Amino acid sequence: MKVAIIMGSDSDFQVVEKSIQILKRFDVEVVARVLSAHRTPHLAVAFAMEAEANGFEVIIGAAGKAAHLPGVIAGVTPLPVIGLPIKSSTMDGLDSLLSIVQMPSGIPVATVAINGAENAALLAIQMLSIKYSELREKMKAYRLTMADQVIEKDAAIQARY
Amino acid sequence: MKVAIIMGSDSDFQVVEKSIQILKRFDVEVVARVLSAHRTPHLAVAFAMEAEANGFEVIIGAAGKAAHLPGVIAGVTPLPVIGLPIKSSTMDGLDSLLSIVQMPSGIPVATVAINGAENAALLAIQMLSIKYSELREKMKAYRLTMADQVIEKDAAIQARY
Amino acid sequence: MKVAIIMGSDSDFQVVEKSIQILKRFDVEVVARVLSAHRTPHLAVAFAMEAEANGFEVIIGAAGKAAHLPGVIAGVTPLPVIGLPIKSSTMDGLDSLLSIVQMPSGIPVATVAINGAENAALLAIQMLSIKYSELREKMKAYRLTMADQVIEKDAAIQARY
Amino acid sequence: MKVAIIMGSDSDFQVVEKSIQILKRFDVEVVARVLSAHRTPHLAVAFAMEAEANGFEVIIGAAGKAAHLPGVIAGVTPLPVIGLPIKSSTMDGLDSLLSIVQMPSGIPVATVAINGAENAALLAIQMLSIKYSELREKMKAYRLTMADQVIEKDAAIQARY
Amino acid sequence: MKVAIIMGSDSDFQVVEKSIQILKRFDVEVVARVLSAHRTPHLAVAFAMEAEANGFEVIIGAAGKAAHLPGVIAGVTPLPVIGLPIKSSTMDGLDSLLSIVQMPSGIPVATVAINGAENAALLAIQMLSIKYSELREKMKAYRLTMADQVIEKDAAIQARY
Amino acid sequence: MKVAIIMGSDSDFQVVEKSIQILKRFDVEVVARVLSAHRTPHLAVAFAMEAEANGFEVIIGAAGKAAHLPGVIAGVTPLPVIGLPIKSSTMDGLDSLLSIVQMPSGIPVATVAINGAENAALLAIQMLSIKYSELREKMKAYRLTMADQVIEKDAAIQARY
Amino acid sequence: MKVAIIMGSDSDFQVVEKSIQILKRFDVEVVARVLSAHRTPHLAVAFAMEAEANGFEVIIGAAGKAAHLPGVIAGVTPLPVIGLPIKSSTMDGLDSLLSIVQMPSGIPVATVAINGAENAALLAIQMLSIKYSELREKMKAYRLTMADQVIEKDAAIQARY
Amino acid sequence: MKVAIIMGSDSDFQVVEKSIQILKRFDVEVVARVLSAHRTPHLAVAFAMEAEANGFEVIIGAAGKAAHLPGVIAGVTPLPVIGLPIKSSTMDGLDSLLSIVQMPSGIPVATVAINGAENAALLAIQMLSIKYSELREKMKAYRLTMADQVIEKDAAIQARY
Repeated sequence: MKVAIIMGSDSDFQVVEKSIQILKRFDVEVVARVLSAHRTPHLAVAFAMEAEANGFEVIIGAAGKAAHLPGVIAGVTPLPVIGLPIKSSTMDGLDSLLSIVQMPSGIPVATVAINGAENAALLAIQMLSIKYSELREKMKAYRLTMADQVIEKDAAIQARY
Repeated sequence: MKVAIIMGSDSDFQVVEKSIQILKRFDVEVVARVLSAHRTPHLAVAFAMEAEANGFEVIIGAAGKAAHLPGVIAGVTPLPVIGLPIKSSTMDGLDSLLSIVQMPSGIPVATVAINGAENAALLAIQMLSIKYSELREKMKAYRLTMADQVIEKDAAIQARY
Repeated sequence: MKVAIIMGSDSDFQVVEKSIQILKRFDVEVVARVLSAHRTPHLAVAFAMEAEANGFEVIIGAAGKAAHLPGVIAGVTPLPVIGLPIKSSTMDGLDSLLSIVQMPSGIPVATVAINGAENAALLAIQMLSIKYSELREKMKAYRLTMADQVIEKDAAIQARY
Repeated sequence: MKVAIIMGSDSDFQVVEKSIQILKRFDVEVVARVLSAHRTPHLAVAFAMEAEANGFEVIIGAAGKAAHLPGVIAGVTPLPVIGLPIKSSTMDGLDSLLSIVQMPSGIPVATVAINGAENAALLAIQMLSIKYSELREKMKAYRLTMADQVIEKDAAIQARY
Repeated sequence: MKVAIIMGSDSDFQVVEKSIQILKRFDVEVVARVLSAHRTPHLAVAFAMEAEANGFEVIIGAAGKAAHLPGVIAGVTPLPVIGLPIKSSTMDGLDSLLSIVQMPSGIPVATVAINGAENAALLAIQMLSIKYSELREKMKAYRLTMADQVIEKDAAIQARY
Repeated sequence: MKVAIIMGSDSDFQVVEKSIQILKRFDVEVVARVLSAHRTPHLAVAFAMEAEANGFEVIIGAAGKAAHLPGVIAGVTPLPVIGLPIKSSTMDGLDSLLSIVQMPSGIPVATVAINGAENAALLAIQMLSIKYSELREKMKAYRLTMADQVIEKDAAIQARY
Repeated sequence: MKVAIIMGSDSDFQVVEKSIQILKRFDVEVVARVLSAHRTPHLAVAFAMEAEANGFEVIIGAAGKAAHLPGVIAGVTPLPVIGLPIKSSTMDGLDSLLSIVQMPSGIPVATVAINGAENAALLAIQMLSIKYSELREKMKAYRLTMADQVIEKDAAIQARY
Repeated sequence: MKVAIIMGSDSDFQVVEKSIQILKRFDVEVVARVLSAHRTPHLAVAFAMEAEANGFEVIIGAAGKAAHLPGVIAGVTPLPVIGLPIKSSTMDGLDSLLSIVQMPSGIPVATVAINGAENAALLAIQMLSIKYSELREKMKAYRLTMADQVIEKDAAIQARY
């Protein structure tokens, strides 16, 4: 099981890195690439077109501003594409979000929250777990760990009041 | 392969119906339910908790306004959950979109466009096609049909000018 | 008289703390909990379902982003629920506000301003003062104090010009 | 138990009427007034100042555009004030919502959804039910009825597919 | 000729101070007050009601968030009221702007830009100059000075390139 | 006393007409012109530059979309300029509002609500009433009439419930 | 001189048609195509890549929702690309506008107003008139005609008042 | 070939400087001016009216807030005008963007992203390259350099994972 993470600019890497960490934690093979929908469109399209043949099963596309990358990828691959809107210096990420989520009929992009890199990875794992039951089990364990962390914080707050 | 479509209100049905039609066209079994995160929370949660055991592999949650349904479902099932924001009589769907897509870290919802019922179904099929290769092939055929329709319309416009 | 404050994440505590301080100042018993609508949904729902039996009369729910916590709580308790939208790192709190205030018909959430922790507590006290007349009197005194502070600041500004 | 509903303009009545119907259904006495924060400010303030003495226990304020009425009322009464933002011909109700919910520290307004007249009434009833246990019981029954309606609609949809 | 500047909170003073400086520069008498529409409503209304009799000819009202102050003042005085929306910690001033500018028919507030304290003062002077021709002349001189400053900066930029 | 109303397009006339009616009701002379900041810029600027000399004391500028007209006028006349944002077919008037109200330091435009034609006229009258005391008296009478209308509507609603 | 107009869907044609009419009026050759960035990406890219060689000098790209078409075209041609955001059934065109105008550094799209088809064509003509002086002259004449129309409407309004 | 860059305030210079650098890199003559649409309207209009006669072929107008400068220039010159919206201290640049891009029919402004100074220059070069083929060739080379930079960054990221 192999996931590709394509970001439109290396400035997105600081956010995207959390996706990579989550995927590695679940022992999912991950390939991270900087491929711009506008500055290197042919490379981006070529990567996406060959992704299925190259053994990728999910693609995460991260981009900011007029964030076309996830939609462009989705148009040339039958693989499910997850869109990760990156907040840039203006518009508080609303431009990225709308550019990614408001895809016209026919070509969906599975959009997560602005800068929601952790969730992009978890969604990829949920998609893969349709096929790979070991990921389903790991996800259940991961959720228990998350719940335990909340419970711990709850105890800490209760101890204060 | 079986997909559940849960809508928060039967007033969402007019939009959601397109999802059902697409899924049926791809010969995916679909169960459509009206389960409110606020008015029948226990039924909604119970359905979602048992969904995996009941053979569902993807859940689509459709809701408007403060659209909590997809997120609530996602919190109690390890299955991938697709969020379909429904446009209501105020705020032009922005409230639904933000309520669904801006999920906090840990529990993603794969969000599609406002009223994007067709794309919610196509995304479910793409997720399932990770496991079921026949859906992958059908999706490729579906895309060719879509492309042909665009080409036809292109010819019609060119014929006018 | 007893108020519960449930926050979706301990990162909300810095804001929520002002609510606790106000409630204590009015000698209202307060229980503060970290219970996530998505990461510990069963604990959140269980707490809310038992809240009435456990002697709580008002619940304050604080959450950010796709802030489902107050609405989820409101769906499983007949107690009045106050929603406190927390500003997060993107969207300037608009996502939290809309996710909390735009509740569909049937299940209201009494929403206060983004990060309006002081007002969440004062609203809880106003609700309780329907029953407890001593809180009504304390509120009147509190308002006089507030007015005096404004009058003092007014004098300070007038002294400058 | 008595609730006042003050609307800024009689054009708000079409929306506000649903609040009156709900309150009457719960056998809560209701007084509906047209009192403008801007065109009849003295009447609005006088009504609010005397509301507590006149036996009102909750006030609902409904207004559109730069909707000051609920906040103005809240400033001169210790009673809890519910704000009902009315959608007008521009800005899709966002102006009303922000004008009502974003109250500064000290004077809260319990805000419900844009045009959420039904919820404004239900929230008033929840507030009153802190004191009047019969309303608490009626609310539980009301919710069961709502749940039954959802279940019925669910059955209708399931019957179709 | 005398202008009143009423701010809803002394935290607005840092912005409002520029209005005072401009008015003094034009030798207009200015009285600055902190009067809250919500925390000291009676004082705010009393001031506004007596403003005409007290020789004020224009009132500037500055407020943030659910900024009711200018509208409340405008409702109880026939004097022209200028609204100065103050940017607060959330919503980037949009809430203040809409709360001030979207006044319903009958009671206008002359709204300037968010944090536009200088313009609030200049607008007051323009209003006064309808009656006081010396202010008209001073305004023309002020504009020439502004133009000269732009011309100077233009020269500086041209010198660089 | 004479007021100019300049609209950017004759399609604005339907809204602007209310301003004219109000001004005539107060016996203020009014000149209405269609002068575009973009299509007839020289005529618009010429009119504004000569407005003071031609006896105008206030100018109302009405425009939609990227509504530059009021600001352009304000830049070439020392007269107070009232901006009336017109709602067009997209963006619900937000573009017009921001284009008019967000004027940079030095050149204010007194902005009223989107499509607030009545208020634009009433504001002009308030400005003129600084000089013309008869307008002040008429405004007081007008407000009493408005209040009476609200009181009448209040009685009608009370009669129903 | 030859301009290509590419629309993402034939539903955009009703708006785009005005662009074609303007270009024809200026005797500019125009080719109108329906080419989707998502449903027929290879055709869209191929057209854009060959556009320069095929004698096109400007490309207009019209699209709605997550409107990637103009940006995708701009990434594969050195020709200037004009983006025409189309208003769709949700979000009032804001999604289209931001998706088109907020292009990242390196690949600009010359964006016009939402549904501004006439302006897209006029901008193309202005670009071409850098090279073709006859278009410059026609544009000056066109503007005179526009000015005359405004003047005529101005006369009509003046005749009424 | 000569491009004018007009900014509304010298505070815009920090952003605008990138436009100048790009134009110089392409050996395009550039004249940078500070000319305010509101504070020095006559100078701004005069510059724009004479721009064609003075040998300019494209004008870039940069402005913030109620950004009228590009539109005002566009109204008095037949040259193509590029609008560069500058982000100011409030509204995150949305006011500038809408004030520039939403031009009414007849007078287009070719708008680029908020603070997109580099793209404003590149767009000017693309317009000029319709006439000057050497700019077309330089643009192709520039794009190759951009692509190489992306490829380099891609390699750097791949080396890390």
